[in-house]
Amino acid sequence: MRQHGGVKLSKKGNSKLRIIPIGGLEQIGMNITAFEYEDSIIVVDCGLAFPEDDMLGIDLVIPDVTYLKDNIQKVKGFVITHGHEDHIGALSYVLKDINVPVYATKLTMGIIENKLKEHNMLRSTRRKVVTYGQSINLGQFRIEFIKTNHSIQDAAALAIYSPVGTVVHTGDFKVDYTPVFGDAIDLQRFAEIGKKGVLAMMSDSTNAERKGFTMSERTVGMTFDHLFAEHRNNRIIIATFASNVDRVQQIINSAYKYGRKVVVEGRSMVNIISTASELGYLNIPDNTLIEIDQLSSYPDEKTVLITTGSQGESMAALSRMAADIHKKVSIKPGDTVIFSSNPIPGNEKAVSRVINELSQKGANVIFQDAHVSGHACQEELKLIYSLLKPKYAIPVHGEYRHLKANAGIAEALGIPKENIFIMRSGDVLALDQERAEIVDKVHTGAILVDGLGVGDVGNIVLRDRQHLAEDGILIVVLTLEKGTNQLLAGPDIVSRGFVYVRESEGLMEEARQILYDALEKCLSNRHADWSKIKLVIRDTMNDFLWKRTKRKPMILPIIMDV
Amino acid sequence: MRQHGGVKLSKKGNSKLRIIPIGGLEQIGMNITAFEYEDSIIVVDCGLAFPEDDMLGIDLVIPDVTYLKDNIQKVKGFVITHGHEDHIGALSYVLKDINVPVYATKLTMGIIENKLKEHNMLRSTRRKVVTYGQSINLGQFRIEFIKTNHSIQDAAALAIYSPVGTVVHTGDFKVDYTPVFGDAIDLQRFAEIGKKGVLAMMSDSTNAERKGFTMSERTVGMTFDHLFAEHRNNRIIIATFASNVDRVQQIINSAYKYGRKVVVEGRSMVNIISTASELGYLNIPDNTLIEIDQLSSYPDEKTVLITTGSQGESMAALSRMAADIHKKVSIKPGDTVIFSSNPIPGNEKAVSRVINELSQKGANVIFQDAHVSGHACQEELKLIYSLLKPKYAIPVHGEYRHLKANAGIAEALGIPKENIFIMRSGDVLALDQERAEIVDKVHTGAILVDGLGVGDVGNIVLRDRQHLAEDGILIVVLTLEKGTNQLLAGPDIVSRGFVYVRESEGLMEEARQILYDALEKCLSNRHADWSKIKLVIRDTMNDFLWKRTKRKPMILPIIMDV
Repeated sequence: MRQHGGVKLSKKGNSKLRIIPIGGLEQIGMNITAFEYEDSIIVVDCGLAFPEDDMLGIDLVIPDVTYLKDNIQKVKGFVITHGHEDHIGALSYVLKDINVPVYATKLTMGIIENKLKEHNMLRSTRRKVVTYGQSINLGQFRIEFIKTNHSIQDAAALAIYSPVGTVVHTGDFKVDYTPVFGDAIDLQRFAEIGKKGVLAMMSDSTNAERKGFTMSERTVGMTFDHLFAEHRNNRIIIATFASNVDRVQQIINSAYKYGRKVVVEGRSMVNIISTASELGYLNIPDNTLIEIDQLSSYPDEKTVLITTGSQGESMAALSRMAADIHKKVSIKPGDTVIFSSNPIPGNEKAVSRVINELSQKGANVIFQDAHVSGHACQEELKLIYSLLKPKYAIPVHGEYRHLKANAGIAEALGIPKENIFIMRSGDVLALDQERAEIVDKVHTGAILVDGLGVGDVGNIVLRDRQHLAEDGILIVVLTLEKGTNQLLAGPDIVSRGFVYVRESEGLMEEARQILYDALEKCLSNRHADWSKIKLVIRDTMNDFLWKRTKRKPMILPIIMDV
Repeated sequence: MRQHGGVKLSKKGNSKLRIIPIGGLEQIGMNITAFEYEDSIIVVDCGLAFPEDDMLGIDLVIPDVTYLKDNIQKVKGFVITHGHEDHIGALSYVLKDINVPVYATKLTMGIIENKLKEHNMLRSTRRKVVTYGQSINLGQFRIEFIKTNHSIQDAAALAIYSPVGTVVHTGDFKVDYTPVFGDAIDLQRFAEIGKKGVLAMMSDSTNAERKGFTMSERTVGMTFDHLFAEHRNNRIIIATFASNVDRVQQIINSAYKYGRKVVVEGRSMVNIISTASELGYLNIPDNTLIEIDQLSSYPDEKTVLITTGSQGESMAALSRMAADIHKKVSIKPGDTVIFSSNPIPGNEKAVSRVINELSQKGANVIFQDAHVSGHACQEELKLIYSLLKPKYAIPVHGEYRHLKANAGIAEALGIPKENIFIMRSGDVLALDQERAEIVDKVHTGAILVDGLGVGDVGNIVLRDRQHLAEDGILIVVLTLEKGTNQLLAGPDIVSRGFVYVRESEGLMEEARQILYDALEKCLSNRHADWSKIKLVIRDTMNDFLWKRTKRKPMILPIIMDV
């Protein structure tokens, strides 16, 4: 019997490993994947997604974990690759139904704990901090955490040892030979595991369309040094992702070097910095950090603000400064504002708006060269494929176009096309050393969170919101006498979001008249039921308004009887 | 007295030239600028803007031309630089109030005439086709049309000769030494006018942040040739901008060369192609164009589809093919789909969605290298500045960041900072040979067009639509007895876009009960007036729903009396 990553390949019967992405493959975010072998399920990551443009009013989206609930007795734990929202953001919701232990590296766990605290779930959640190289045993699985690099510290790839072979899940990763904090990705361990034989590799596809190699995070530090030297007479404001602690570290390093005080602004930034700092992931020289209220005590050219808002988020600190509604900081002519970020697709216009507003206030805005990606480009993916030499390739993390590009890389490296699987959420891939195939489809879905409501906004409510957003609503109210259908009051017409009523009195009066005529006819039949009356109201108003305005507001008839 | 571009510099009194951008400087699009000298006003361009993300349900935006209406007796005509929507799209609306002649080059006029026909305004609009080099006299102005290049044919820069000097307005332009159709930009004429002395230059800022030189349109033709050679066994579908007739010409050229039949699909594409074709701007070899219904008579690899939808517009032909709702074309595995375009900022996600859908259907999607911009980059702007050597520089066409970049170029070329004007819409720049300054501000604004309604949707309606989109509406209806305020019917609660009512019956029932209690108290005062009752309803519901759901639907109380 061949040793396989330390687990004996005792193929009891015909059992196969089942890999089931429960989310993450139809959209960016909401990463969650189940690995099932006989009586054991482990779940890798539990992320949220941000709402699509047509999900009006929705705050966030979490995965429908019905499959896990239905198999709750099998589920052994959540194994988390890193602390970004799209990998941990749904934990606080899902743990309410699937209360199993959570395994993660130290900083990742620190960030998870912040979230659990907010939901008052810290005491009820079993948690275990794992170090690199350490393995945990969960049912029939053994999982080893392997050091990788990413735009957040403490990211891990996972080697998942199952009775039928080893699956390596890269998580989100890049190859950084000179990281700012901690070690480079553990390429030797990847090679070692690869040498022993890897059944399948699941890898980050985000940058699979991009040629070459992602630059080291450290190069951004050099850019900061240049920018600090060049703008030594100006206040410097730098916007970046709250969770990129290494980026913040490098800004602090440059600030210290150039004798500037540092202010951290924006709630999420302050939170993560304080967690990272407590846990030892951030090294702040004494007397460098000051409170925002102390800013005025220092000359502009001796200060740096590190802030949220690099994506143009309207409520973030930088956007508020740009719009002149920030309570403590006003943009002044001469300020240097650096975007240490790239716009995430969909945010381009919002970012541009903030850049315009800052420019108009006289700031010098720098939005190039002060950022590197946290994801592997093509050459890095080729490297990992070549170290692991998996039998099967399963591209993950990305839109379809990215998955397809990753699949193309795998194929170019000699993995047969039939061994490459671009999966959809819910697909069940059953695999062992002999074969792999999609054998089933389980229920998956997206649950919308709006305020305190989890799942109470679905397609019907969303369709209504879209309709209301497009053309508004026109409400027709009337009171009838019970039994006789005699019109006692109304019809009154009230509209919102349709036309500016004060300037459209003629139109509304005409609508009322036409409605009155239609109702008179319809109510003359004293047995006309309400659904018939409502239909008449809807049809009459739809026809009239379309003819007159080419718009289709929602028509809502309300009938009362007395 | 110095001759100045053919107009005598007879400075009667202290009259100055007034340049008044009526739109186009706070947003992309809606370009319209008035030039005023004593009793004469000419207007350059009359464009529309596409709605911003927060203008829910709005179809398009046109400029508020109150200033022109107030000075209607002075207005001599519209002078149009080229046929893009952001330069001509508001003409059909504005001409209804300001019925003066329109001057444009041949293809530009052809496109304008299509629009006037749709509005049934062809007969009532005076139009004059102008050729390059030709001048027209309008009041105290003479305007010369100068050949430029752009992503639409027949684009013109304008030399505006006024009694105090010459202003050159570049329109949207690039420098293309090897255009596909017609001549290169008339650099000699720019030089000649420059030599005689230019008071001010207004120039296209769109690409002013980009280094270097925009590539010739002809390079895209070479790319098509390569792509056609490489994909000779596949059907080819190419999406591009409807108005880029040169692009279409080059696709047709490649198709002809490789023995393929061409189908043109998408309403706006068909319209412009037929206009360009009739006017002689497009040269289609016999037996090349076929109808979409004939597609099935040819093998896939002998066909090319040219289609709209390169911006991911949801109703455009390509998007419908990608979503499998196009009536005549289905995407098949092996299809090669080329995006001959770049996403306009804000459209990135929509384009990506279409790319994903196409990829999922097995198409090979190419979205790089098959496009060049129609706007001048930094080196081209430097060239035109250097040929014209204007005293004043006025960057136009672009967001503030672009205008600022253009201003930076002017400054680098030696134009003193105080002679560079980044204007805002409504600013009145008064200038002559001695000085230039902003002397006044006139009323400007954006008028929203929604269906047939022009201006009947304003801020109040938009705010309501945003509110409705975010959290929906909750309507409370009740019928009172006249005089006694006795509750005869209700309170009934109806909601739309708030929660899925069938699954929230408990919440709604509780709301009704709380409302009932509040009303009982309030109505016990038989003199409570309706505004007081409505206030109680709003406050009660707002409090309750916020506490229970953390949402704020619009609360709309409707009271009837009998």
